Amino acid sequence: MGQRVLIVGGVAGGMSAATRARRLAEDAEIVVFERGPHVSFANCGLPYFLGGEIADRNKLLVQTPERLKAVFNLDIRTHAEVVSIDPEHKEITVRDRTSNRVSTERYDALILSTGAAPVVPRVPGADRPGHFALRTLEDMDAIDGWIKERGATNGVVVGGGFIGLEVAEQLHRRGLRISVIERNPQVLKPFDPEMAAHLHIELRKHGVGLYLNNGLSRFDSPTAGERAGASVVVLANGTRLPADVVILGLGVRPEAKLARDAGLVIGPTGGVKVDAHLRTSAPDVYAVGDAIEVTHGVTGRPALIPLGGPANRQGRTAADNIFGVPSAYPGTLGTAIVRVFDRTAAVTGANEAQLKDAGMAFEAVHLHPNAHAGYYPGAAPLALKVLFDPVTGRLLGAQAVGADGIDKRIDVLATALRAGMTVDDVADLELCYAPPFGAAKDPVNLAGMAAQNVRAGLVHPIRWDEIASLDRTLALILDFRDRAEREAGAIPGSVHIPLGELRARLDELPRDAEIIAHCASGQRSYNACRILMQNGFRCRNLVGSFKTWKAAVDGSRPT
Amino acid sequence: MGQRVLIVGGVAGGMSAATRARRLAEDAEIVVFERGPHVSFANCGLPYFLGGEIADRNKLLVQTPERLKAVFNLDIRTHAEVVSIDPEHKEITVRDRTSNRVSTERYDALILSTGAAPVVPRVPGADRPGHFALRTLEDMDAIDGWIKERGATNGVVVGGGFIGLEVAEQLHRRGLRISVIERNPQVLKPFDPEMAAHLHIELRKHGVGLYLNNGLSRFDSPTAGERAGASVVVLANGTRLPADVVILGLGVRPEAKLARDAGLVIGPTGGVKVDAHLRTSAPDVYAVGDAIEVTHGVTGRPALIPLGGPANRQGRTAADNIFGVPSAYPGTLGTAIVRVFDRTAAVTGANEAQLKDAGMAFEAVHLHPNAHAGYYPGAAPLALKVLFDPVTGRLLGAQAVGADGIDKRIDVLATALRAGMTVDDVADLELCYAPPFGAAKDPVNLAGMAAQNVRAGLVHPIRWDEIASLDRTLALILDFRDRAEREAGAIPGSVHIPLGELRARLDELPRDAEIIAHCASGQRSYNACRILMQNGFRCRNLVGSFKTWKAAVDGSRPT
Repeated sequence: MGQRVLIVGGVAGGMSAATRARRLAEDAEIVVFERGPHVSFANCGLPYFLGGEIADRNKLLVQTPERLKAVFNLDIRTHAEVVSIDPEHKEITVRDRTSNRVSTERYDALILSTGAAPVVPRVPGADRPGHFALRTLEDMDAIDGWIKERGATNGVVVGGGFIGLEVAEQLHRRGLRISVIERNPQVLKPFDPEMAAHLHIELRKHGVGLYLNNGLSRFDSPTAGERAGASVVVLANGTRLPADVVILGLGVRPEAKLARDAGLVIGPTGGVKVDAHLRTSAPDVYAVGDAIEVTHGVTGRPALIPLGGPANRQGRTAADNIFGVPSAYPGTLGTAIVRVFDRTAAVTGANEAQLKDAGMAFEAVHLHPNAHAGYYPGAAPLALKVLFDPVTGRLLGAQAVGADGIDKRIDVLATALRAGMTVDDVADLELCYAPPFGAAKDPVNLAGMAAQNVRAGLVHPIRWDEIASLDRTLALILDFRDRAEREAGAIPGSVHIPLGELRARLDELPRDAEIIAHCASGQRSYNACRILMQNGFRCRNLVGSFKTWKAAVDGSRPT
Repeated sequence: MGQRVLIVGGVAGGMSAATRARRLAEDAEIVVFERGPHVSFANCGLPYFLGGEIADRNKLLVQTPERLKAVFNLDIRTHAEVVSIDPEHKEITVRDRTSNRVSTERYDALILSTGAAPVVPRVPGADRPGHFALRTLEDMDAIDGWIKERGATNGVVVGGGFIGLEVAEQLHRRGLRISVIERNPQVLKPFDPEMAAHLHIELRKHGVGLYLNNGLSRFDSPTAGERAGASVVVLANGTRLPADVVILGLGVRPEAKLARDAGLVIGPTGGVKVDAHLRTSAPDVYAVGDAIEVTHGVTGRPALIPLGGPANRQGRTAADNIFGVPSAYPGTLGTAIVRVFDRTAAVTGANEAQLKDAGMAFEAVHLHPNAHAGYYPGAAPLALKVLFDPVTGRLLGAQAVGADGIDKRIDVLATALRAGMTVDDVADLELCYAPPFGAAKDPVNLAGMAAQNVRAGLVHPIRWDEIASLDRTLALILDFRDRAEREAGAIPGSVHIPLGELRARLDELPRDAEIIAHCASGQRSYNACRILMQNGFRCRNLVGSFKTWKAAVDGSRPT
């Protein structure tokens, strides 16, 4: 008989660990303890069942205990809650939630994949009916049942994180009127504000009520004259939003109690502390998934990054280390993606806030190129932001929003980031090009080239959020777009010179003021800057130009 | 006055060089000589106009000389053929093709972007009417006009390269009956045969006549009783294909005559030889694009890789080097993509033939995962092949075919390849995952993991093309799929054991024969191999399993 490996938690990381362990050790005894009734379900699919995009609930049950027994010879115990760990005697105590019987199980190796629990708001009225988190199949079934039974037509999502926005989109698809409330000035914290702004616009375009900078104050019962409903969500500024159903999307916290009670070291973020081999502080006890604290791949700081991809790979790594296959977990970049109606947003690496927190110098470029060759039908622009180290040129992070081609660009940049590439490397990447798929210079290449130009001093950037506070006696905003573009909207107080006329009109321009150049996306105004700089003018190029400025301004209003 | 930079050729590389040069040097004199009537046209879009996907011909004219003058102050001379270079006196001779006047032009720096010319078959009847290459807007107009005038309903494409297949698809879309002939046993030489086989199947599925291993012998006039038409394409085996229109897609050769006549060094491949800074052997003479010989990014060998992406980046690099911005071209990986009806195929790095030629050891994995999470609607499998160095684990090349998500996977792998990543790095890449976009373990991750398993000796691979010659007295083919899958087709002589029954039926299996395990894609049979190996059986896993074997067998028939 081989080693006895116990695994706590049968989703994502836990199940990856179990199946990998079996492949490495046919003679091991592998027992998976799952508190809930299901193992290996597709938790990322839950919102899409609620909206009806996934019609068949069985599709979410990726594996059954029977099949896992047949194929992987796994001993799966559902409704089995691990209540304590005794690292000294290498034992765990398990309570069967059906029979309430408690038993003790010996281990040679233990893998904790306890996950994370939804944050529950500690506000008055939190225990009113019709409030749900969405983390498990049971949560999903409860929401689905509630909506059906009550004939719910009105929903409020508390918190504009990834799951909050997915649920908002899907309940809207189901026909509910949806509001999203968020105490921060923007949704999706991993994005910088001017990128999240694109999603604010998209949500509102589809009729979602979006309340920013306005958190949850309490839950109330409907008052006389107010729309009937299960609950009224009261915002910080007093706004009352009656709701038939409330989805709590306030994020998650690591389920670290089991580890903490057993004396395992917990990191400053509240996640279980592990080394690069995913070993906890107790011998032969590993931890993986949303329960652990990881090292951020860019800032090097401890971080909580609860994502399915890393959890799965961590499970495999833990099993490798138990069975002698050398394997280290390289840290987490936080690569994530979300579809919000007709827009997709994705991110990898660090954003501005994280870089500032870590005291790391950065510079940014913003682009709005087409997702594929402009001459081929269906070309739609995407917004791409790339952050880099101005001294070394090393890539630090990237964010993109658009109609399509978003996952591709962020996956490429996530790969470049992991490789430690510089913007020079990114400019020279050799990517697929045929008219339906890309461009001779892919948006990723263009971002690298734009960053090269900044580093080489060929252009000096100015950010969209510096425009409002410019002293207009010292700075002149010059718009280099074509006339038709300008007629559709302009930055207040800007002056218009179509790029093609610039060389002939240089003597119209002031030499005592700084020129802030912009066009639609920043490419033509970069050309303008090159002409101006080489003619002795002081000049900065508005990063991302009118498109970035306009989205940020339009998207940043709180309601 | 700044430097006088002359550029020969006004498409792709030449135009990228010109605009970059202007941004770097406002005071330079930049003259572009273009033999044809148009500069900066979208040559990759030509097939799509023929098929009507691009409806507006003007969309293909990316820039006009007037706009290039206004924005970039470029002196664009069309119909201007450069007929000689005098490197010693730094002069070129130019013939105006309209007036036939010849003039001499001095340069400080010269950039050759002369491109490549279509290979013209030297066979009897090659000068018959209705034969066209597709390289320029004029070629495109001629084909379009010919088809309209003649009411062409029947076309033959000679050569199954990228452009040949794009034209075949587009003329089919236009309503023509199309045949493709190819002297090699497969289309698209950059792909390995079992990957190209997927496209053979797709072409035939759409009614394209595909003649493989059967090159062009000659062109004939229609004989009595034969369908009328402009030409009859006669194949090596005597097959006669009457055609109203013939597209010559036999590839291109570098236009190196100008360079050769001027005494510049030409590489062994026939392309202009350049160093990493794209300098030719003559002082201050640079060359870029399809005319040059590049270093293959994986094999390190001299190669001709005529692609738009590299050409554009090379143009920028040449301009950088002229104006003192340090810049080197890193070699070419040959990343390329083509859409063929409902399939997309893409490739990066070296294929098996190139690796064998270069004497480089390699191993391959084949996978057939879904392009996104299987539980989300629309999940379609893709075929992914990854080549790697069995000793170091370094990535060497990748190929993919499928309905969608192909460009993304090859772009990620092209990035990993450029970074020098190993299969371990690829297994750990952190890529976007939400149900519409990917999977917790992306196909790219899975390929890395599969390669890790091969390197670690956890599984021993066998290739699809080794199956036919197996000595069945020494080897037993075991099929681990489910019953329904097996009923739809099986490898002749194989024996069926559903994976879930394997452990209970081990004593049915021979210990004196090698077991060849397969399932649909290789994942379940990998699990089977692990069980078998740990129970003392000799075992190999069929790489890519039934799906790869079936496509290769079905797709490899010559007609």
